[in-house]
Amino acid sequence: MFSGAQISLYPMADDFVRIILDALKALDPYRPSFRIETDDISTLIVGPPDRLFPAMRDLFVAAASGGTHCVLAATVSRGCPGEPDDPICTPAGTEGPALPLDRRIASALAAVRAAPLVGQPVAAQFSLYPLGSGHHMDEIYGCIDFLKQSGVFDRSKNFCTKLRGDAGQVFATLSEAFLRFGAAEGHVALDMKVSANSPTRA
Amino acid sequence: MFSGAQISLYPMADDFVRIILDALKALDPYRPSFRIETDDISTLIVGPPDRLFPAMRDLFVAAASGGTHCVLAATVSRGCPGEPDDPICTPAGTEGPALPLDRRIASALAAVRAAPLVGQPVAAQFSLYPLGSGHHMDEIYGCIDFLKQSGVFDRSKNFCTKLRGDAGQVFATLSEAFLRFGAAEGHVALDMKVSANSPTRA
Repeated sequence: MFSGAQISLYPMADDFVRIILDALKALDPYRPSFRIETDDISTLIVGPPDRLFPAMRDLFVAAASGGTHCVLAATVSRGCPGEPDDPICTPAGTEGPALPLDRRIASALAAVRAAPLVGQPVAAQFSLYPLGSGHHMDEIYGCIDFLKQSGVFDRSKNFCTKLRGDAGQVFATLSEAFLRFGAAEGHVALDMKVSANSPTRA
Repeated sequence: MFSGAQISLYPMADDFVRIILDALKALDPYRPSFRIETDDISTLIVGPPDRLFPAMRDLFVAAASGGTHCVLAATVSRGCPGEPDDPICTPAGTEGPALPLDRRIASALAAVRAAPLVGQPVAAQFSLYPLGSGHHMDEIYGCIDFLKQSGVFDRSKNFCTKLRGDAGQVFATLSEAFLRFGAAEGHVALDMKVSANSPTRA
């Protein structure tokens, strides 16, 4: 299975280039297990699906820690039939989404409860796309069940779900949504925005 | 059919609030035919599917015209089974995607050729998600065929396609990808980022 993300970091500040370059150092611990490529729109990370969200969390918290209003936007994908299999994408040891929906929801909740707090409040919104299946709404409604019990559920919006809480728990919740819903070996994409230090609190 | 977009505008500048508020005036001509709601993460626009991309184009060009590095990120959706039908979402008069793939590609190319130039160079990348169908990759490959002939194709990337050119043609190309691929009455989502005035040219 191929898994990875196209990540963009948007610091709303005149010195955005410095903030982005400084934050990218937070990816250094992940470089041995990831392929990383940057262009003018996004940074591609390819690696184990269960390491993608911890890497994005560390990158984003590094960017936001100075107090600048920052957004991270990412397109995350696993199992895309148009991509080659890649040995670096092998997950470390999750049980995968082959279990019944209620078991997957329980496992996802346990994983979020075990997630470390990092002390950075964030708001996030995301959409989950289980592709190539006639039952995609069942997986989406199962995922929404999980989200409502996650402790970071804010509200349902048109086309997406909004979360709010500590970055540690929000990124863990996004990771569980990505890993445990949609077919085990299927094509799943997730589109997300995470925001910190916004002057608007709505 | 329900159609709309969750739009976020990211000006990489200390005075981002002013730039966003000024740019939002560009949506005024669309307000009679759209429902528009804003929170701290995004602005929702709900309206006819064929008017969504012209509205986003006008908003983005207004924000970028001062020379600030700006990004517009949007999640665009039509036919989501979780959303109510809404009379304001009725398209003005597109022929819809019920035709064979080659006919739809020809119509999409004609529409892009007819699009007005607006004088703002942009780069964009996006992913198209035709949901609830076992043949989603056929629609995606058909769409890629169209994109390669669009005149604004830059390159294929992992999980997305990159475009580059005048904002008029790039937004028209995104609109055609959204309207003409995936089942006519099906659930289609599109995740996009459009960037202007980047100091990096890759």
